[in-house]
Amino acid sequence: MGSSPTAGTMNIADLPTPAVVIDAAILRNNITHMATLHPATALRPHVKAHKCTSLARLQQDAGHTAFTCATPREVIGMASAGVGADLLLANEVLDPQRLAQMARAQDTTRVTVAVDSQDTVRAAARAGIANVLIDINVGLPRCGCSVDDAPRLADLARSLGVEVRGVMGYEGHLMMVADKQERRDKVHEAMQILADASLRVGGDIVSAGGTGTFDMYDGTVVNEVQTGSYALMDTYYSQLGLPFHQAMWVLGTVISVSPEWAVVDVGLKALGMDHGDPSIDQHKVWFCSDEHITFSPSDRVSFPSIGDQIRVTPGHIDPTMSMHSTAFVIDGDAVIDQWPIDLRGW
Amino acid sequence: MGSSPTAGTMNIADLPTPAVVIDAAILRNNITHMATLHPATALRPHVKAHKCTSLARLQQDAGHTAFTCATPREVIGMASAGVGADLLLANEVLDPQRLAQMARAQDTTRVTVAVDSQDTVRAAARAGIANVLIDINVGLPRCGCSVDDAPRLADLARSLGVEVRGVMGYEGHLMMVADKQERRDKVHEAMQILADASLRVGGDIVSAGGTGTFDMYDGTVVNEVQTGSYALMDTYYSQLGLPFHQAMWVLGTVISVSPEWAVVDVGLKALGMDHGDPSIDQHKVWFCSDEHITFSPSDRVSFPSIGDQIRVTPGHIDPTMSMHSTAFVIDGDAVIDQWPIDLRGW
Repeated sequence: MGSSPTAGTMNIADLPTPAVVIDAAILRNNITHMATLHPATALRPHVKAHKCTSLARLQQDAGHTAFTCATPREVIGMASAGVGADLLLANEVLDPQRLAQMARAQDTTRVTVAVDSQDTVRAAARAGIANVLIDINVGLPRCGCSVDDAPRLADLARSLGVEVRGVMGYEGHLMMVADKQERRDKVHEAMQILADASLRVGGDIVSAGGTGTFDMYDGTVVNEVQTGSYALMDTYYSQLGLPFHQAMWVLGTVISVSPEWAVVDVGLKALGMDHGDPSIDQHKVWFCSDEHITFSPSDRVSFPSIGDQIRVTPGHIDPTMSMHSTAFVIDGDAVIDQWPIDLRGW
Repeated sequence: MGSSPTAGTMNIADLPTPAVVIDAAILRNNITHMATLHPATALRPHVKAHKCTSLARLQQDAGHTAFTCATPREVIGMASAGVGADLLLANEVLDPQRLAQMARAQDTTRVTVAVDSQDTVRAAARAGIANVLIDINVGLPRCGCSVDDAPRLADLARSLGVEVRGVMGYEGHLMMVADKQERRDKVHEAMQILADASLRVGGDIVSAGGTGTFDMYDGTVVNEVQTGSYALMDTYYSQLGLPFHQAMWVLGTVISVSPEWAVVDVGLKALGMDHGDPSIDQHKVWFCSDEHITFSPSDRVSFPSIGDQIRVTPGHIDPTMSMHSTAFVIDGDAVIDQWPIDLRGW
């Protein structure tokens, strides 16, 4: 599954904790299943979900050559690793140094940057970025211009010698609409906005979406879907009953037991906390500290002992990955690979 | 204030964002004020709050030679940087490799490890750790043994040739008791437990406390206070009206504006989120995404423009520091130093 020479001899019992562990088979199934539904460039996997070029390479092996990034660091790291032939920064950037770094990455890969204002168009052009997408607001109050502003920005970009490849719009406000039909209807409404923008902007690309809406683009103009979380999944997205399964946990060691509770060495500095506390299967989480979770078992399992390993399920995968430097790939209890989480930072 | 040769020529307008910025004067005042109240080894500053040896060096310059750490990485990093003469790992560890690394650090500094079980005592002894403190549970359901178990653990440690320097107990459950007199009373009750343990264990050290209770140990047996947050402070602790002031923010750049909101490039991957959303002075935070905050100004300030810099106040400083690789030290708008946040990880 990768190239680390020594990892094959390790067992999860040998791992220093807290440690990100990824189940190789579940990850592979998630990637394969999505590649069947959205093959090749119909999917533009979002690397912000894992920040790991080794994992992105598996997505590339499954047929995807175009990737989505959230930070210049992700674009530059993917280019340096030689993964992906078409990298989209689906985010606005003004920083001339980072734009110049991304422009240099164009020597080896295609780089496209989202723009939603005259300032971001001019900053991209000035740095020598060759391609942009016009980022359209499709309802989420965040980045993205109005449909009315889009043609002017496209004209400005073209007048500055920058190719406008099309439009993108992220309907992030719809990812967690609980009712599937309602979610689909609202996605279709939002994609009408993107269709109007596409007509007025031109270009080939109409890019949108996320894991919560991955199967809702039939009958829309969307021709590439920006999903990230599907690969490692999440307790948050799993509420939607999607056909992808949790493949990542943070492994910890029980370092202290008391008559009523135990303590594992996975704390809030090792866990994305914006979706709330983590969970531990068959156990009750009492609270999280910087370096600890205090927890107790349910009636169905025995009380943990000092030295036991425990799998902690983070509330949110994306920020959890960005807190760790390494992911350990496991097959049962065998550690079969180690992947640097090499796209961290900005 | 430090040794970075080029930082002196920078202005905050030049900083790549998101960027941790530390106000040098406020930091210095916080450190000086605490050193007046708890001079020299009466304070054992906790480095987990900042994970930065350059900042710890300022605390050392203020007279403190003993430090508290939460992870082996913090102990090893402090030892490598040559900061502190007496490093306490106020946490339980079983990992033989990390214990061995800390034992090697004993060539250059004194290392003491907290223990609360036979397993942790034996693991420390086996690795060659020369000094331990018995960690006593003083009411927080986390690590720490009972007073009754403490003498047996001390005897075991001594029988294995390990020096028992005394006891510690962290009354973390009392840090945020809102009423000051009630907080003081409860701290004194908890410290009675520690006093009993100290009598039965022996040794010189009775270590406890945090920033919320820094001034509540008169009349107790506590002879060193483990405060960390006081140096950079926190909106959470500032609810208590302590005589320390916020010295750290995450600087961001406004990358997008819409008629009703603006977006700054500081997201939840750059912010400790366990105390909830960050705040922006004079502005309303709408929500946080991985790489963005959507916000709007109050009536008292003008609407931000693309390219404006904004200071974001994290809900919790400790985990925020651990998400960044560099802290920029500022004096007004001048960047006067850059500090690696070099104690991250485990």
